[in-house]
Amino acid sequence: MNHFGDLLTARISDLSNPSVIGLDPRLKQIPEFIKDEALNEFGETFEAAAAAILMFNKGIIDAIYDIVPAVKPQIAFYECFGHEGVKAYQETVAYAKEKGMIVIGDAKRNDIGTTATAYAEAHIGMVDLFGEMAPVFDADSVTVTPYLGTDGIKPFTKVCAEQGKGIFVLVRTSNPSADEIQGQIVEDHLMDEHVASLVEGWGRELIGDSGFSSVGAVVGATYPEEAHILRNLMPNQIFLVPGYGAQGGGAEDTKPCFHSNGTGAIVNSSRGVIFAYEINKQPGEAYADAAREAAINMKKDLGKLF
Amino acid sequence: MNHFGDLLTARISDLSNPSVIGLDPRLKQIPEFIKDEALNEFGETFEAAAAAILMFNKGIIDAIYDIVPAVKPQIAFYECFGHEGVKAYQETVAYAKEKGMIVIGDAKRNDIGTTATAYAEAHIGMVDLFGEMAPVFDADSVTVTPYLGTDGIKPFTKVCAEQGKGIFVLVRTSNPSADEIQGQIVEDHLMDEHVASLVEGWGRELIGDSGFSSVGAVVGATYPEEAHILRNLMPNQIFLVPGYGAQGGGAEDTKPCFHSNGTGAIVNSSRGVIFAYEINKQPGEAYADAAREAAINMKKDLGKLF
Repeated sequence: MNHFGDLLTARISDLSNPSVIGLDPRLKQIPEFIKDEALNEFGETFEAAAAAILMFNKGIIDAIYDIVPAVKPQIAFYECFGHEGVKAYQETVAYAKEKGMIVIGDAKRNDIGTTATAYAEAHIGMVDLFGEMAPVFDADSVTVTPYLGTDGIKPFTKVCAEQGKGIFVLVRTSNPSADEIQGQIVEDHLMDEHVASLVEGWGRELIGDSGFSSVGAVVGATYPEEAHILRNLMPNQIFLVPGYGAQGGGAEDTKPCFHSNGTGAIVNSSRGVIFAYEINKQPGEAYADAAREAAINMKKDLGKLF
Repeated sequence: MNHFGDLLTARISDLSNPSVIGLDPRLKQIPEFIKDEALNEFGETFEAAAAAILMFNKGIIDAIYDIVPAVKPQIAFYECFGHEGVKAYQETVAYAKEKGMIVIGDAKRNDIGTTATAYAEAHIGMVDLFGEMAPVFDADSVTVTPYLGTDGIKPFTKVCAEQGKGIFVLVRTSNPSADEIQGQIVEDHLMDEHVASLVEGWGRELIGDSGFSSVGAVVGATYPEEAHILRNLMPNQIFLVPGYGAQGGGAEDTKPCFHSNGTGAIVNSSRGVIFAYEINKQPGEAYADAAREAAINMKKDLGKLF
């Protein structure tokens, strides 16, 4: 059976590229030629927004799938267009997988018991549809939030074990106010280090041949010293690292998230890649080529680390 | 303009009923006659699941809207049927509002910056749809998770201020493993008390004429002593209280979540009301009447507290 930790590790190694591109398709920033096509077909509707998002994403995926191991669609940017937007999310996941990419659904879901099970089924598992088991969003993995403790994680790890899927648990986020909870001192260490110990435990039964668990951790690149401590506390976790590029961090800041042999982390960039055409002041028609170029530059940048 | 804290307080007072019914429509437990109708129309598809959920919910809402102030659809049970399920969520919210009920979307969303803004727009605000602002799910309020700190909350409170909507921040959940994070000692108090102080601060600018803020708190009924402490730390927060009924708590356990005058809390029951027909071993056709009876019993039970 598939094992998410092994699959992601192998794909990163095959492409020599520990990066993931965030598919955060803000409608305002999608090139006009794409929006015009959607508007011509559907008028100013949620369907048009969803069609524009899907068209945009397909262009990005086509441009990067042979050089980048994974994509991370941020579901908030789909959900904000209602059920039509969620359909575009579902279709984006399917398209990326068709092209051989690994999909990390960035949903930060959390709940307990049967509710957490329903989320796990929705995002990475299968649902009982009148007696037949059917996949739903069917991403390879999903991000989750730890605030409810083990009760909120076990329903996800159960699906991971059964379906070969993965999760990334928020441990240390990249934002300035992360300290308000994650940086509080519990006994003689920070809260995020306490959470790291929990995550290490949650992932112990899901360690694959690669040495990595299908239970990973989100660890921001904006707290490099803390990342070093967390790396030691979670030796078997793959770190999903936000904060590179548009969020202010450079490749050097992500280094403590990796093991010294360069394994164990995957660095995310969203806006810096998918909207590179805006940063470069190129015409919208060049967006996919610009994204490929930005993805190649990111790969080179990360490649210098080890 | 509307003010969520005032609206909810007034509606609870008008109906003399501090309860909210959770719309958690597990497909397996929906009466056969409803599922048969959906299957006849749509076959064994996600559309059929969504149609069954919506039909079921409408029956519940019709049976309780004149005696219960609010419903709390748990979005996980909709999301697990993909975009069709999310459409049923959207239609459920609209139907409940049409009937004059206040809707608390139980989504436990969390993220930062523009991503949190996208969630806020999706659940309680409006999205920029090609230059026109359009409501999306349009619930009156939504539950959120505090793990990312102020950066993850401000985008929601901004929408609350602009649109008269509300949020409930998870402070103390009702599950056994809640202590793993919420019960850790930070300085000389528990983590959930630290979060309570943050929530009190986040809500300060959104206090209405009722004395209650549009920023409420989720406080489980399964830790009554802790609830008492949290009540003092958050005098202006309306407590959304899970854990009554099927989750094991009785009315007495919810008492510390209220102020001594009986205001300031709304108690949730989901399965115990919507699937009361199963508990009573009644035929599926009686599900709406059974729900109404269970809702009346819950009202009476809570009415004895003050």
